Amino acid sequence: MTMMKAAVFVSPGRIELQEKRIPDVGPNDALVRVTTTTICGTDVHILKGEYPVAPGLTIGHEPVGVIEKLGANVKGYTEGQRVIAGAICPSFTSYACQDGYPSQDGGCECHGYKPMGGWRFGNTIDGTQAEYVLVPDAQANLAPVPDGLTDEQVLMCPDIMSTGFAGAEAANIRIGDIVAIFAQGPIGLCATAGAKLRGASLIIGVDGIGERLTIARQMGADVTINFREVDPVAEILKITGGRGVDASIEALGLQSTFEAALRVLKPGGTLSSLGVYSSDLKIPLDAFNAGLGDKKIVSSLCPGGKERMRRLMNVVASGRVDLSALVTHHYPLDEIVEAYDLFSHQRDGVLKVAIKPF
Amino acid sequence: MTMMKAAVFVSPGRIELQEKRIPDVGPNDALVRVTTTTICGTDVHILKGEYPVAPGLTIGHEPVGVIEKLGANVKGYTEGQRVIAGAICPSFTSYACQDGYPSQDGGCECHGYKPMGGWRFGNTIDGTQAEYVLVPDAQANLAPVPDGLTDEQVLMCPDIMSTGFAGAEAANIRIGDIVAIFAQGPIGLCATAGAKLRGASLIIGVDGIGERLTIARQMGADVTINFREVDPVAEILKITGGRGVDASIEALGLQSTFEAALRVLKPGGTLSSLGVYSSDLKIPLDAFNAGLGDKKIVSSLCPGGKERMRRLMNVVASGRVDLSALVTHHYPLDEIVEAYDLFSHQRDGVLKVAIKPF
Amino acid sequence: MTMMKAAVFVSPGRIELQEKRIPDVGPNDALVRVTTTTICGTDVHILKGEYPVAPGLTIGHEPVGVIEKLGANVKGYTEGQRVIAGAICPSFTSYACQDGYPSQDGGCECHGYKPMGGWRFGNTIDGTQAEYVLVPDAQANLAPVPDGLTDEQVLMCPDIMSTGFAGAEAANIRIGDIVAIFAQGPIGLCATAGAKLRGASLIIGVDGIGERLTIARQMGADVTINFREVDPVAEILKITGGRGVDASIEALGLQSTFEAALRVLKPGGTLSSLGVYSSDLKIPLDAFNAGLGDKKIVSSLCPGGKERMRRLMNVVASGRVDLSALVTHHYPLDEIVEAYDLFSHQRDGVLKVAIKPF
Amino acid sequence: MTMMKAAVFVSPGRIELQEKRIPDVGPNDALVRVTTTTICGTDVHILKGEYPVAPGLTIGHEPVGVIEKLGANVKGYTEGQRVIAGAICPSFTSYACQDGYPSQDGGCECHGYKPMGGWRFGNTIDGTQAEYVLVPDAQANLAPVPDGLTDEQVLMCPDIMSTGFAGAEAANIRIGDIVAIFAQGPIGLCATAGAKLRGASLIIGVDGIGERLTIARQMGADVTINFREVDPVAEILKITGGRGVDASIEALGLQSTFEAALRVLKPGGTLSSLGVYSSDLKIPLDAFNAGLGDKKIVSSLCPGGKERMRRLMNVVASGRVDLSALVTHHYPLDEIVEAYDLFSHQRDGVLKVAIKPF
Repeated sequence: MTMMKAAVFVSPGRIELQEKRIPDVGPNDALVRVTTTTICGTDVHILKGEYPVAPGLTIGHEPVGVIEKLGANVKGYTEGQRVIAGAICPSFTSYACQDGYPSQDGGCECHGYKPMGGWRFGNTIDGTQAEYVLVPDAQANLAPVPDGLTDEQVLMCPDIMSTGFAGAEAANIRIGDIVAIFAQGPIGLCATAGAKLRGASLIIGVDGIGERLTIARQMGADVTINFREVDPVAEILKITGGRGVDASIEALGLQSTFEAALRVLKPGGTLSSLGVYSSDLKIPLDAFNAGLGDKKIVSSLCPGGKERMRRLMNVVASGRVDLSALVTHHYPLDEIVEAYDLFSHQRDGVLKVAIKPF
Repeated sequence: MTMMKAAVFVSPGRIELQEKRIPDVGPNDALVRVTTTTICGTDVHILKGEYPVAPGLTIGHEPVGVIEKLGANVKGYTEGQRVIAGAICPSFTSYACQDGYPSQDGGCECHGYKPMGGWRFGNTIDGTQAEYVLVPDAQANLAPVPDGLTDEQVLMCPDIMSTGFAGAEAANIRIGDIVAIFAQGPIGLCATAGAKLRGASLIIGVDGIGERLTIARQMGADVTINFREVDPVAEILKITGGRGVDASIEALGLQSTFEAALRVLKPGGTLSSLGVYSSDLKIPLDAFNAGLGDKKIVSSLCPGGKERMRRLMNVVASGRVDLSALVTHHYPLDEIVEAYDLFSHQRDGVLKVAIKPF
Repeated sequence: MTMMKAAVFVSPGRIELQEKRIPDVGPNDALVRVTTTTICGTDVHILKGEYPVAPGLTIGHEPVGVIEKLGANVKGYTEGQRVIAGAICPSFTSYACQDGYPSQDGGCECHGYKPMGGWRFGNTIDGTQAEYVLVPDAQANLAPVPDGLTDEQVLMCPDIMSTGFAGAEAANIRIGDIVAIFAQGPIGLCATAGAKLRGASLIIGVDGIGERLTIARQMGADVTINFREVDPVAEILKITGGRGVDASIEALGLQSTFEAALRVLKPGGTLSSLGVYSSDLKIPLDAFNAGLGDKKIVSSLCPGGKERMRRLMNVVASGRVDLSALVTHHYPLDEIVEAYDLFSHQRDGVLKVAIKPF
Repeated sequence: MTMMKAAVFVSPGRIELQEKRIPDVGPNDALVRVTTTTICGTDVHILKGEYPVAPGLTIGHEPVGVIEKLGANVKGYTEGQRVIAGAICPSFTSYACQDGYPSQDGGCECHGYKPMGGWRFGNTIDGTQAEYVLVPDAQANLAPVPDGLTDEQVLMCPDIMSTGFAGAEAANIRIGDIVAIFAQGPIGLCATAGAKLRGASLIIGVDGIGERLTIARQMGADVTINFREVDPVAEILKITGGRGVDASIEALGLQSTFEAALRVLKPGGTLSSLGVYSSDLKIPLDAFNAGLGDKKIVSSLCPGGKERMRRLMNVVASGRVDLSALVTHHYPLDEIVEAYDLFSHQRDGVLKVAIKPF
């Protein structure tokens, strides 16, 4: 067998299922047969032509599967083993990686830094919405799935869960903190779960869709605010008696959520930004206390690597966090074009879609 | 003797030397006879009416002096002892103080937070450009001057040195880092000295005035860039081979310096902001890598308190940092109006002015 | 009314209820009418003469009560308000406090440092096992109880909860960590709850008493080990497949628990020590990897202050942690000698005793 | 040419120069022609049989050289390029590496952790005291030498400088700290230089050899103490007015230095341990404040990797630190047995020996 099916970016507005050769396996690679993958908001940007990738590239960056073939230098794994890999799969050998920024991995060029350079699947190399995917630097990126966990249980680990948790981690949450999370899509919901995991005592979830606020409460939000009904900035300041929150997490990528996240911060607080923005941002003078409020704005890209994946799967296995409510729809790979249509139009209460190649 | 001379804000454009009553000393206060003080950029904003304070308020927030009288509850000091106090003199008892943000001290109100609330001298209470100043919460704020140090040697500790060093500290500098500091006025020069103290191996100082760049090299800059001659962003990217700097420090308060500081950052780097801004800031989408560059923007207000002052004076005493080059002019308190005129117009290469009441 | 009842240390082996004068209230003090307090293991050391205090001192350091009278300088509170204060009640103004170590507060002496100097109640000043207690530096130490919380719900905040959580905080736990806690007495149980709050995905509780292991599982332990049945070091290495734990918490104060906590650590891991030791400790060469294992041993004393208390009470109010199972017995103050007898002999499954003066 | 000379461990007490095959180069390796290397204290332990290695192993772990041949997967380097590699040369792909502990790299076994597992040269694979050395995981470990730096200038980077600086970094030094370093051999001298680089304002160097104390002052010590003349604990407490130091660094590996380092610490301070111990350690109860002093004991193994080497060489290039005084003797590889004899007996004021194979 040498050919496989793969979802390929053709041109703006068009992703197609095509036949492609199953890739050859180099000494540091692993070939993984994909058992489940999903569609991310970034993929929709690619579909729409808002984020450019090379025509002909296989899309998708969230692999759950089985090791089909291991490169000669990849040790400690067995073919047939169930694994995941992070959406971000850095080399871990570059200057950027050793410096603590593997998601900004520049390989051996650019002095080792390249913005978002650790993101390769469905960006600079063929991705996971296919029957097979080649995992580069496999020694660093293959993460065995613990026994007893289903594909759906670990499907959020490669991207959404890692990103959302990173937002909570970068927010430097301490026990007893008050945290507000702006937007409760998949990433915001994971950030909400992450804030609870770090010990926040009051978590405020903001969104405009009632169903998402319901899930936010399941994920750990103590209070939810529908911004279509009340002004979230005024409401959060009221809830906190004028003090503001210790940390706020932006999980959408708009000026309005960024600005609200800054306005509700106490002096000394941290705004943790996860959104992918599409235009310049404004920092209002008053919200930034003219630069004198000891405020911090930090941004994070999804952490990857097998150690990160191992930790996240252990959190799932522990039962501390249950993200199964996020997988709202299932499609075979053959119907991925329909899945994109549903997901990109956010129909039918969709949060995340499981795609099954086999 | 019950009366003293004090520099008082009268109305925008007008600061006058007036006679005022020497204040009474409450149980937690100390009265300090000022032997040297100085004028800060913030005082010029007050003079111009850009930062409003109550008419009649004594201005100034950088005290070097001698304890004249101690409140009943203030222990461990002696009258006649030489001391300084931070420009920011928090209570250290409020929620904000205990939370790690004494500069944002809200006292017993506002849940303990008030933006810039730790700044009291010449802002919400009478300041230091006078013969005497009342130090509140004296137990927390009086810092004895080590033997052998002159007034001029410790005159920068209360504000400029504490602020500049805070910029380097918040930049999270590690041994071997590359750091760029935008603007080499008094605060930028101290940030430059601070970056060297933290172990940066390549420090790049940027300004438009040649004399300041000369002093920058004395303070620790390995390379200086005159932005009137070359584009600092392009030059810094060239110097770093396209990699960018690990940390950049903004020490002026303009969009142009803020933006340049963001553009020269490597992915994962930290922009440490010290400037007092006067308008909204823009974060350009590309410079922020659309939110995916793991970049951090942190702002700091001058740390105060006797422990901070003790540490800074020890740095001076060690000879590691010599800021004497920053005190370019001397005036008696009687001529403070002239001193303001010189300083506010930045004439005669002025960096900092020493004011002597006696 | 000028007299009150107080539990007083008389001589080794003897604590008595005596009549004492209700103390006068200085300008920075507050007098609190105690509604509930408790007995700590440290009090038993005092009773036995193992930790010396001045004869005649009122014992106890965990106050829940009502403000009876406020000093002239204490602002933002009202008489009649329900409050707690930390077992450790530092000034927050000393060098040690401003340096980040309020529990080691040396006041205005000893350069501001004094080992355990923040602990004053029932150690260097009259304590809380009385009808009234004088809270020093009240502005920094009075923490209002949120509406709706009972005395019993907040009774652990001043000491046990703050200490146990500090053990988890100092262990530098990250999401997905494996953590072992040695001893599941009141402090170990709180450390277990704290490890869960910080995001550990596998928590292993060790003790020799089955009932305590049952409560450990309620507090967050995923696995419990009875050291009377199996060797905890071997068992933990087995559970972790030989890897060891990311962090271990020592919560008893013995060589055996300290050594086991070191032996189960992965290279790079942190041993967080909470116990009060009574003899020299040995670090076995192999367990310390001859100094080359990147291991860390950190010790913590209970953090105090109103901000800490506010955070802990918010955790209780959030329902994230429920410590009510720890209060196993109730006594009026009149019967405190009996309560000491029960508690010091650890009879009847006692964990903590609530003492009610009124 | 297929053969080379190499210093080989034969049996306890015997290291010989032997002929060996020049190793083959695998796809992830690089062969480096050694131009300069040195002897470390650890090598002396190997010589004496105190640290066992396989008979026939080439010793040495500090390579300065020229790339002779690159493996097929190693990108971004050129043959003929001058490089160094760390004494510790981890894979950077294992769980331990991604977890932040590359020096404890367990490869693909032991769940990715192995105590000291990142140390391979002259420990588990052939080392650098030879004409050629094979660098494993070369993509992660080859660090180009900046133009203009001599072999001698970068010879300390692979081990001594990285270790000593790590001691200062792990000590969590802040601007204005007081730091004591116990022992001023090569590692202690580098720790002294590191403490200065991190901003300590008072550095106290302790040793028993006058010449070393002289060099300590060149490296940044403000005060030196000869322990043969005065008791260093008493002297340091006197110098600090009873307060103690913020951080102490142990750089020898004895109970006496470890214990002294703990006794001079302020409450809340950090003991940073670098020594290689040969017996159990004792923590005296009083020096540890019975576990209640908020003290920290941290141990560090030399960090490696090309990013670390890049940073250290940049520090050398900046002129901030000049370690040339540490290279006291030069030998050709042919006379390495004589060099071991001198170095192991610490004759003739030897600090470090440069060994030149060609």
